[in-house]
Amino acid sequence: MDQNKPHILVSNDDGINAPGIDALIMELQKIANVSVVAPSIERSAVGHAITLSDPLRVAEFKKEDRWCGYSVSGTPADCIKIAINELLDTEPDMIVSGINLGSNTGINVIYSGTVSAATEGTILGFPSFAISLTTYTNPNFAPAAKFAVKMVETLPNLALPQKTLLNINVPNVKEYQDIKGVTITRQGMSPFAEEFEKRIDLKNRAYYWLGGSKSPIKEDIEIDDRAVKERHISITPIQFDLTNYKYMESLKKKIPEISLL
Amino acid sequence: MDQNKPHILVSNDDGINAPGIDALIMELQKIANVSVVAPSIERSAVGHAITLSDPLRVAEFKKEDRWCGYSVSGTPADCIKIAINELLDTEPDMIVSGINLGSNTGINVIYSGTVSAATEGTILGFPSFAISLTTYTNPNFAPAAKFAVKMVETLPNLALPQKTLLNINVPNVKEYQDIKGVTITRQGMSPFAEEFEKRIDLKNRAYYWLGGSKSPIKEDIEIDDRAVKERHISITPIQFDLTNYKYMESLKKKIPEISLL
Repeated sequence: MDQNKPHILVSNDDGINAPGIDALIMELQKIANVSVVAPSIERSAVGHAITLSDPLRVAEFKKEDRWCGYSVSGTPADCIKIAINELLDTEPDMIVSGINLGSNTGINVIYSGTVSAATEGTILGFPSFAISLTTYTNPNFAPAAKFAVKMVETLPNLALPQKTLLNINVPNVKEYQDIKGVTITRQGMSPFAEEFEKRIDLKNRAYYWLGGSKSPIKEDIEIDDRAVKERHISITPIQFDLTNYKYMESLKKKIPEISLL
Repeated sequence: MDQNKPHILVSNDDGINAPGIDALIMELQKIANVSVVAPSIERSAVGHAITLSDPLRVAEFKKEDRWCGYSVSGTPADCIKIAINELLDTEPDMIVSGINLGSNTGINVIYSGTVSAATEGTILGFPSFAISLTTYTNPNFAPAAKFAVKMVETLPNLALPQKTLLNINVPNVKEYQDIKGVTITRQGMSPFAEEFEKRIDLKNRAYYWLGGSKSPIKEDIEIDDRAVKERHISITPIQFDLTNYKYMESLKKKIPEISLL
C-alpha cells in the first residue's frame, strides 16, 4: 500500500467478473490503493439482503494481470460486512460500489444491490457512494469511471453527514465531454407499470416473468431519472433512517385511538 | 367474499407454512375476507429483493381446513406484486405482512423481508403494515394477532399518508394484558456489533457464519427497540423516499466543487 494514497474498498452487485467493476478499479488504481470484495455471481435486485441461513465462502480472485480481490458467495451487503470484519488488514477511507450496468434511480433504489453495498458501508461508518451507468445496452463505462475518480477526490470536502451516502447515476455517453452537467437530485417516486407475463413450460405448468416499464417522467430536473435523461450526472444523497418524522408527530396525537382495548 | 367485510391481503417472509402467518390469518378471518400470497419457503433477511432473473412459480396452498392461499417461489415483494397484478380477482383494502418470528427494529428494518412486503403494498398504493413478534424462542403469536385485528380496524382512521407504512413490533408476552401500552416510535440507529465466525469444512476449506449482537440500548422510549423492551407495542411510521432533503440543499451549494472538470 502506498501510504500517500487513499484506501478504497470496491464492491458491486453485478459480480466480481462484471466489466463495470473492472472499469472502476482500473481508474481508481491510478489515485488510490484499491481493495476489491465483490459477489462471486450477479446479485442484481437483491435489495439490502444479508445471508443468515447459509455460510459464506470466500475465494481469492485474480483479474488477469490487472487487479486481485476476493469473491464472496453472498450479497453486496455481505461483501462489505465480511471485508471490514474479516478480510481487510487496514480500514478503507471510502467505499465505492459499482459501476452498475443499468440505472439505480426512482423506486428502484430500494431494490438495488449496488446501493445496498454503499449503504452497508455507511452503516459501518465509512464515507460511501454507489455509481451506476444508466443503460443496459452498449455501455461505455469510461466516463462514469472518470467521474468516480473525481468523486473520490471531492467527497472529503462535501461534509457528508453520518448515515448519508451518495447515489450517483451517470448517463451513457460516448465521450466524457458529452455529459451536460452535474445535478443534485431527489429520489423519483414515479410508479412502475408492472406486468407479469404468464408462460407454460414443457410440462404444461405455468410460470411468470416480471416485466413492465417506468411511467413517463414529467418531473423537474431535480428528480434522479429526469436528470440523467437530460444527460446530467445525478447525485442523490440518501439515508437509511426510514422514519416519517412528520407523520410520527401527528400519529402520536392519535394514540388514544390505537389503545390496546 | 362477504361484501360487508374488508378484503385483506396477507403475506410474510417466514414462508406460507410458518406459524406466525397462520395465527394472523385465523384472527383476521373473523373480521375480514383474507387473501394469502406468501413465499413458498423462508425468505428472511432478503431485504427489498425482487426476482428478475428467474421465473416465478405459483402453487395453490391449503392449510388444513383453516385457510387457502397461493405460495410463490419468490421474495415477499414478489408475492405482493404478483398478487395484485395476477392472482387476486379484487383489489385488497389493506395489506398486512407477518406475523414475523423475530423483531424488525433498528437498522434491521432495511434487511427485513417482512417490512418489504408491506413496503411493496404501499408502493402499489394500498394501506399496509408489517407486524413482528420480538422473540425467536417460545413465541406466543396470539397477542400480536389480536393487535393486528385492532390495527386493521383502526388504520382507516389514522390518516396514513401516501408512501408511508407502519412497522409494528409486539413484545412476546403470555397474555395480551401483559402489554403495557402502545408507543409511536422512530427507527433505532444503534449499530450492530458484528462478528464472523470462521470454520473449516470437511474438505479443509474455510467458511464464515455471520453473527453478532445489537449494542445495548440506552435510548429513550421513542426508539423502536427500547419501546418493545419496555413491553410496549412499537409503531414506527416508515417511508421509502430515501432522499436526505436537508443535506440535498447544502450539497447543491457545493456544485461548483463537483463540476465535471
